[in-house]
Amino acid sequence: MAKLVKDITSRDEDFAQWYTDIIKKADLVDYSSVKGSMIVRPYGYAIWENIQSILDKEFKKLGHLNLQMPMFIPESLLNVEKEHVKGFAPEVAWVTHGGSELLEERMCVRPTSEVLFCDHFKKIIKSYRDLPLLYNQWCTIVRWEKTTRPFLRSREILWQEGHTMHETEREAREETKRMFKVYEDFQREFLALPVITGRKTEKEKFAGAEETYTIEAMMYDGVALQNGTSHYFGQGFAKAFGIEFLNRENKLVNPYQTSWGVTTRMIGAIIMTHSDDQGLVLPPKIAPTKVMLIPIGNDEEVTKTVLEIQEKLSRKEIASRIDTTDKTPGFKFAEAEVKGYPIRLEIGKRDLEAGKVTLVRRDTLEKVEVVIEKTVEKIENLLEEIQENLYNRALERRNSMLYNANTYEEFKMIVNNKPGFIKINWCGEMACENKIKEETGLKSRCIIEEEQPDGKCIVCGKPGKYKIYFGKQY
Amino acid sequence: MAKLVKDITSRDEDFAQWYTDIIKKADLVDYSSVKGSMIVRPYGYAIWENIQSILDKEFKKLGHLNLQMPMFIPESLLNVEKEHVKGFAPEVAWVTHGGSELLEERMCVRPTSEVLFCDHFKKIIKSYRDLPLLYNQWCTIVRWEKTTRPFLRSREILWQEGHTMHETEREAREETKRMFKVYEDFQREFLALPVITGRKTEKEKFAGAEETYTIEAMMYDGVALQNGTSHYFGQGFAKAFGIEFLNRENKLVNPYQTSWGVTTRMIGAIIMTHSDDQGLVLPPKIAPTKVMLIPIGNDEEVTKTVLEIQEKLSRKEIASRIDTTDKTPGFKFAEAEVKGYPIRLEIGKRDLEAGKVTLVRRDTLEKVEVVIEKTVEKIENLLEEIQENLYNRALERRNSMLYNANTYEEFKMIVNNKPGFIKINWCGEMACENKIKEETGLKSRCIIEEEQPDGKCIVCGKPGKYKIYFGKQY
Repeated sequence: MAKLVKDITSRDEDFAQWYTDIIKKADLVDYSSVKGSMIVRPYGYAIWENIQSILDKEFKKLGHLNLQMPMFIPESLLNVEKEHVKGFAPEVAWVTHGGSELLEERMCVRPTSEVLFCDHFKKIIKSYRDLPLLYNQWCTIVRWEKTTRPFLRSREILWQEGHTMHETEREAREETKRMFKVYEDFQREFLALPVITGRKTEKEKFAGAEETYTIEAMMYDGVALQNGTSHYFGQGFAKAFGIEFLNRENKLVNPYQTSWGVTTRMIGAIIMTHSDDQGLVLPPKIAPTKVMLIPIGNDEEVTKTVLEIQEKLSRKEIASRIDTTDKTPGFKFAEAEVKGYPIRLEIGKRDLEAGKVTLVRRDTLEKVEVVIEKTVEKIENLLEEIQENLYNRALERRNSMLYNANTYEEFKMIVNNKPGFIKINWCGEMACENKIKEETGLKSRCIIEEEQPDGKCIVCGKPGKYKIYFGKQY
Repeated sequence: MAKLVKDITSRDEDFAQWYTDIIKKADLVDYSSVKGSMIVRPYGYAIWENIQSILDKEFKKLGHLNLQMPMFIPESLLNVEKEHVKGFAPEVAWVTHGGSELLEERMCVRPTSEVLFCDHFKKIIKSYRDLPLLYNQWCTIVRWEKTTRPFLRSREILWQEGHTMHETEREAREETKRMFKVYEDFQREFLALPVITGRKTEKEKFAGAEETYTIEAMMYDGVALQNGTSHYFGQGFAKAFGIEFLNRENKLVNPYQTSWGVTTRMIGAIIMTHSDDQGLVLPPKIAPTKVMLIPIGNDEEVTKTVLEIQEKLSRKEIASRIDTTDKTPGFKFAEAEVKGYPIRLEIGKRDLEAGKVTLVRRDTLEKVEVVIEKTVEKIENLLEEIQENLYNRALERRNSMLYNANTYEEFKMIVNNKPGFIKINWCGEMACENKIKEETGLKSRCIIEEEQPDGKCIVCGKPGKYKIYFGKQY
């Protein structure tokens, strides 16, 4: 029974090793012969399919249309927008040959698709009647990272990228924030992540964007994971690409643009927020299997009861599976814990005679006995409770790792002693941001939009312009 | 009104140009700055999403699990299976640089993923208890084609590839045929394609397969489109990759393998089978929008009625849209024809006063008047009728282009005079197949499994071993 579990390193001893153990033991990911790339195994991919399905419905409800762009970008096209190419060129994979022939122009595998969309927009946008254009693409992108970690930083990334074009600045700014809100709500409600949101600094914003809004999730170890961004581009790309439309005054003008994306990083965030030394813990709303049903022994009546329960769960659209393997009950229980099914149900002949089953919550490992007739009702309630408990537990932990630093000395002391995010007053100058980065290793996480500074910049002493979070990051 | 339509070349005059006109005018595809790659625009992608959603449910019902493999294949991995690399190496795109660094080993973008799956299978298959492994992946692949045509032959292809591993030869052969049947049924029922099915010859089978089953759809011009294949690999890849498992007798043996795939080619097949000089024609079961509702004039009561009809359609899960643009009715009608919505509904103030609407079938362009109360019922019936009519019409046309040739002279005469497939007796020797190819340009389509030869090979005169179809292909 303990075999599976014993192989998991304690998260308090070695968080990085613990993370690797979890994704391997829970069959989420495997390494491949392709350096830096991961295999997303069926269980991991099923989580991604759930994420996709929920977000895709939301995008479509708001009027976005899916499409598919080429995966290659000719070098000349990547070069059109100067900030953009500067940001991405160092980390792209270059295709130089087709079969045995050298290409006339090399092409990179898309690290993101702004330039491809702009190239297309230029052809199809002619009038204000064509706007807004609300497009989205589900695909993989490639960034040639030196060091990789599954889900967090990988050479190939599964993601979604929205690209929209608007008649007015106001509309485009609204879209940027609207989609940002979709991400935030999704992560709170479905992934049970108590995320912190705000605006990136000039230094940290997306290459080519006027503004970048970021979702910053704090992991169990106090380190930040940037977990989704939404960008307002203004007319920068439109001007560089010569995208123009006839406005309502019959004048040729440039449209306003946004883009926004989330990736399989979110799966990494779920793991590093909710899981424990027993294995994976999944929020019920995103778990591919909500309940694992484990019949104990080979009893016909037990089997019948389990099948009846599954049938009832299925009618309520609660995904469950029955463990029919020939492993021992103890092994099955441990496996259910490692895999992070929100609830496991145990029932043997004696339970049946007593008219009850045992439910085990994965979040607390608490056992609950319930009479058979009430099983489905209890499961429904428990799933809600677990979802809520995971959020609250993560929120409490996160809050315990949020700090205020009123002086740079205090800031450095916190950095040296406590993991987490540190809030400061900041003058808004990149020099101070750089100094913090150089001296402490911490990067700015986000400018807090709803909070005003209440003191001087802790670095230079000039008037504070922003409240801002700093933290280590993945 | 006629403007949109006039721009479509007649399919009897210039089929290739007609095809290009249809995909451009119906907004299915756009060309991009990436040579040989296409942009699948939202309307085209919505068709693909429908295809995906139906097939994916079917795969999952049969126990297949989705996952995601890397998109790159290191050269050494591609080289493991000799037949396979011979077939694919000439047409792959090679990545040689990551950022500014030359890679130690170049990698190709997957042209198909057998070797990646085998590399993974080797690690995860240990015992007969791990079998069968039923995996599927939705992704894009790259093949460096010299000449391309959207949906038919493109450098980047959206597809699905199933990869399965089995304990016994019998199971693997059954799986090969089972998934082949899934494709065949899907194409007949949903795409209304009267496909011909059979086995590929040695010459035409997949590089590395023991047997390839193929779906051959005949286009309006009599030319074949290979529209889905299912392969039985035997133990070839398993041996090359050293994949072994402990069988029930506790002996280490190689498993038996299959793979199967369909692509966006199916969209090409729909177009070239059902569409006409007025534009796209889509089978209702696969059309993203089943009914386009066109209110005529700006009448409040008309608008209200149209909204009510849409509401009722929506309750029956019949996808409809309302054309609320400020174009003229005539323009809207023409556009609905070009876009191939199975039914368009027209209603103006006078219709409303008379208590009726007009429905126009896209397949026949026939107009049907119906009382408002019966609209939804009539639409339901019409959609079924259209689906059936498209299949029957295509079947009749296909049958009119199937020929028997009893001698090689007869064969050549048919080739020179009539488009279509020609059935012959064949000895099974590649020499005869090659001769036909060289002298007439026709390739073998498929060996007809359910039919026995009834004469000598028309080329060499040796005893006939197979009934086989020959035909030109896309």
